[in-house]
Amino acid sequence: MESGKPTLHHLSDSQSQRILWLLEELGIPYNLKLYARIDSGKDRSRAPPELTAAHPLGKSPVLVTSDGRTIPESSAIAAYLLKTYDPAGRFQGDDWIRDEVLTSFAGSTLSGIIGIQLMLDMMGGGTPILLRPLVRVMTGGIDRAFVTPELRKNMQCLETELGDRDFFMGKEPGRADFMLSWPFDLIEQRKWFDFAAYPKLQAWRTRCQDRPAWKSGLEKGNGYNLARF
Amino acid sequence: MESGKPTLHHLSDSQSQRILWLLEELGIPYNLKLYARIDSGKDRSRAPPELTAAHPLGKSPVLVTSDGRTIPESSAIAAYLLKTYDPAGRFQGDDWIRDEVLTSFAGSTLSGIIGIQLMLDMMGGGTPILLRPLVRVMTGGIDRAFVTPELRKNMQCLETELGDRDFFMGKEPGRADFMLSWPFDLIEQRKWFDFAAYPKLQAWRTRCQDRPAWKSGLEKGNGYNLARF
Repeated sequence: MESGKPTLHHLSDSQSQRILWLLEELGIPYNLKLYARIDSGKDRSRAPPELTAAHPLGKSPVLVTSDGRTIPESSAIAAYLLKTYDPAGRFQGDDWIRDEVLTSFAGSTLSGIIGIQLMLDMMGGGTPILLRPLVRVMTGGIDRAFVTPELRKNMQCLETELGDRDFFMGKEPGRADFMLSWPFDLIEQRKWFDFAAYPKLQAWRTRCQDRPAWKSGLEKGNGYNLARF
Repeated sequence: MESGKPTLHHLSDSQSQRILWLLEELGIPYNLKLYARIDSGKDRSRAPPELTAAHPLGKSPVLVTSDGRTIPESSAIAAYLLKTYDPAGRFQGDDWIRDEVLTSFAGSTLSGIIGIQLMLDMMGGGTPILLRPLVRVMTGGIDRAFVTPELRKNMQCLETELGDRDFFMGKEPGRADFMLSWPFDLIEQRKWFDFAAYPKLQAWRTRCQDRPAWKSGLEKGNGYNLARF
């Protein structure tokens, strides 16, 4: 790793992709250390143990700053990068309360729901075949009673919040946009929810994915298949 | 509600208690609108529908500022209150990156795990009696394979982060301390995990709960029984 630059410890097919996108938007030099998910029969697509050397939780993203400080947690990394490398505030909008609300919405409220949905998905796959129909009845019940109605409420809120803006934080994406990209990508790639009823959100996603920095982030990463785990 | 003051829309037995604690620490005048959870056979201890008038997600806490802006999301409310009513920075420590990391850790990483544990708990209660042993086998498996090991890693990280500090943010509690109180209270009240192996975290919890503002927050609220839902 070259000194004098921040280093991103990046896991394939993970939420770290949004940080790679942000780094590309900033256009700064950085080191990229890639880790690939491990496929095994028992623990499907876990992060490799080497990631614990970057941070004891063994998760990604982890950023090591140019002066050697280790920062975990996507929203903290995004805050650090913007404060350090975007002094003109191009990617920061003009409403810090909105940034706080939508960043928390992405990382806590929305991610809480999709964490549960992810576990329901994995429960189906990890159960002995004979019991799967029963598990499907149970997980389907939770899905209908809780996950789908909550997702619908969340999406309606976000559709309203976005309104006629290009991005949640204004003319350019901000921390909340980077943060929100991950739950949306997970939901779409795993086919949990149909965004058809939310045209503004659909247009926002297209605007994000059309950006050169989004595309170069995907090229520099090592895969972004969120249906594989 | 008196004008010129912020108003907290507060749900009993909920994460909103940490905002009540913060308001009491700040010692500012505020309006408090209390909502009680509804017990019913089917949807146990849900938030009452009136909360959707405060914010369309129908969740608590919601803060309405003295000039009428509605702010959802605990970490955003805490950031707003500290920036507005703690200009001297008594409750803000001196390391904003640490604040970002630990606040996200509380609201995303740790809360993601306890959200899954909460769902496993509720699955047990909501299943027909004859199927419960089977459900317990399944949920117990997830608990042993995922929830407990993750909680253990999280607790070890936090024990190390706290170190010899009184509070995570220094001599006084900061946003991260307010934010972390909720997952700890939930874990302890629902007996999901034994903190005995983490003496520094135990001492931190005692220090929080011994504070006059913690106690007056409990008195002004309408219950904080996290085992009832």
